[in-house]
Amino acid sequence: MGYRIALDAMGGDHGPGEIVPAAIHALKKHRDLELLLVGLEDIIKPRLAHLNHELAVRIQVLHAPEVVTMDEAPSSALRNKKNSSMRFAIEQVKKGQAQACVSAGNTGALMAISRYILKMLPGIDRPAICTIIPGINSHTHILDLGANVDSSPEQLFQFAVMGAELTGAVENIRAPKVALLNVGTEENKGNDRVKKAKILLDRSHINFIGFVEGNHIYSGDADVIVCDGFVGNIALKASEGVVEFFLHHVTDGFQQNLYSKLAALVSKPILESIHRKTDPRRHNGASLLGLRGIVIKSHGSADRLSFAHAIEEAMLEVEKNIPARITSRLEVLLTSTLSR
Amino acid sequence: MGYRIALDAMGGDHGPGEIVPAAIHALKKHRDLELLLVGLEDIIKPRLAHLNHELAVRIQVLHAPEVVTMDEAPSSALRNKKNSSMRFAIEQVKKGQAQACVSAGNTGALMAISRYILKMLPGIDRPAICTIIPGINSHTHILDLGANVDSSPEQLFQFAVMGAELTGAVENIRAPKVALLNVGTEENKGNDRVKKAKILLDRSHINFIGFVEGNHIYSGDADVIVCDGFVGNIALKASEGVVEFFLHHVTDGFQQNLYSKLAALVSKPILESIHRKTDPRRHNGASLLGLRGIVIKSHGSADRLSFAHAIEEAMLEVEKNIPARITSRLEVLLTSTLSR
Repeated sequence: MGYRIALDAMGGDHGPGEIVPAAIHALKKHRDLELLLVGLEDIIKPRLAHLNHELAVRIQVLHAPEVVTMDEAPSSALRNKKNSSMRFAIEQVKKGQAQACVSAGNTGALMAISRYILKMLPGIDRPAICTIIPGINSHTHILDLGANVDSSPEQLFQFAVMGAELTGAVENIRAPKVALLNVGTEENKGNDRVKKAKILLDRSHINFIGFVEGNHIYSGDADVIVCDGFVGNIALKASEGVVEFFLHHVTDGFQQNLYSKLAALVSKPILESIHRKTDPRRHNGASLLGLRGIVIKSHGSADRLSFAHAIEEAMLEVEKNIPARITSRLEVLLTSTLSR
Repeated sequence: MGYRIALDAMGGDHGPGEIVPAAIHALKKHRDLELLLVGLEDIIKPRLAHLNHELAVRIQVLHAPEVVTMDEAPSSALRNKKNSSMRFAIEQVKKGQAQACVSAGNTGALMAISRYILKMLPGIDRPAICTIIPGINSHTHILDLGANVDSSPEQLFQFAVMGAELTGAVENIRAPKVALLNVGTEENKGNDRVKKAKILLDRSHINFIGFVEGNHIYSGDADVIVCDGFVGNIALKASEGVVEFFLHHVTDGFQQNLYSKLAALVSKPILESIHRKTDPRRHNGASLLGLRGIVIKSHGSADRLSFAHAIEEAMLEVEKNIPARITSRLEVLLTSTLSR
């Protein structure tokens, strides 16, 4: 099968400067891929002038005169930027001109516009952001990462269904282990919402392994970890903060004196190999789950390599037909609940 | 002035094996310190037999026949362990036999028993757990770390008052910078509780600097960061998870082959110096704020050095008279609010 993906070429901190090279990188790697670059024609087209015929026929530019800025309020982007690259890219999915779209732009705006244009899947209240976290034993899919605050137990249950379907499909796991993020693993721990969500999950056919604590995000023991977006966003940003803090001290430590600079030189290949293994860019590309269409959010600071990975994430979700899988799983769950 | 601190000698993963040496270490370091070791006499006393007279006169043993276990439900510890070392240690504070108590035991039980025995300060609904987090520019006090779930805006405000008083006193800062943890820094971000707490803080005399995100916990830009215990606990445990994940890869990376083992040898002093700077043991000793008395919670896995630091944290709070400061600040705030 062939893939046709729309890219919001203007989004993110770098815009076309990194997104166009990312597109070319992905086209070279995947001969069955076609890309639709959406954005300011005058900026994008010159960057494609040098392409050979084989690549040029698989890339198309769709002019969009407006750009959603990174700090724009989602409601304002939705109301006032009807000709933005972000909106045009999402509309390509709606119209069937693309099977998925990828944007490194303003997350809130991407959520709001996607929801408005594509609509939600039946049985899902709100979209959730899901990403892969590398772990000690294996990696984990976690959701929601900030799309929702104050999720109800029912919404947490919906996140669990969506996360399990995505993870099962892309990782080829028959019954992914799903856990709920909490302040302790005992039954009596936590707030009302996680306690009630636990009851819903205990009763379902999901392979629910119970509560896990914050440190388990990085152990890889669960395939899917479910949480409210307020908690998930803060946990992930706190993790980024710790990494920055350590890198600061490592850089500092190795720059103290001549001996430490020598040690840095000797250790460089090892430190680089550690960095490669733990590099978050390898996992760039979060899914906006629950929509009637595939939308992938790239990190705003993504470089070409990283953005190319987000394109591959979109291809994988197209191949696995994630929205349809979520819908059919929800139908099964609803039927089995009603028939009890 | 002299200090008199009660220690729950049976709490934590190691009990008297680390707590008695920690006590002796602290006594040697501080000649104005007296300690009351509370727990099973038969286990504690033999460990003190070798002490010289100068130290022996400053350490006393109070027999308590029961021990609260680490996995015991707080309600059960409160109801069924009326002769526990933890309870006796807290009662010494109530009776004025000690100015503060320190325990490495079960956090939930310590909270419940402290609250029952000591009672809350006027104007404070519930105790909050506050600790220091090392950061890039400076360190930050953060609360609550798991004592409360679903805190109301008023409770978040109380945490801010308590955190600001503690930090101002122990760090000698006149107007500590207080921030609220949120999923974004813009006004419209977050759940209702943080938005309402922001209004209360904006109106108050607290030096409130607004919302901060998860990564700011480790930047040191705020002196105090306030959050609900559910969020704070998960953010901190997630941070621990990241550190474990990195240490795993660092250890692994330096063990790959002969070259990397050699590099590890060369880098050892630098890595050790980094570890010292970022060592959480230097910051052991969380405060249970809001009680009519000083209670310090040591990490359950604390070794002697680390537990000794928790004793010093207790001494500092005694010197600064934290509960009285919180009370007088709340009186000022209430008066100024009422007079508007």
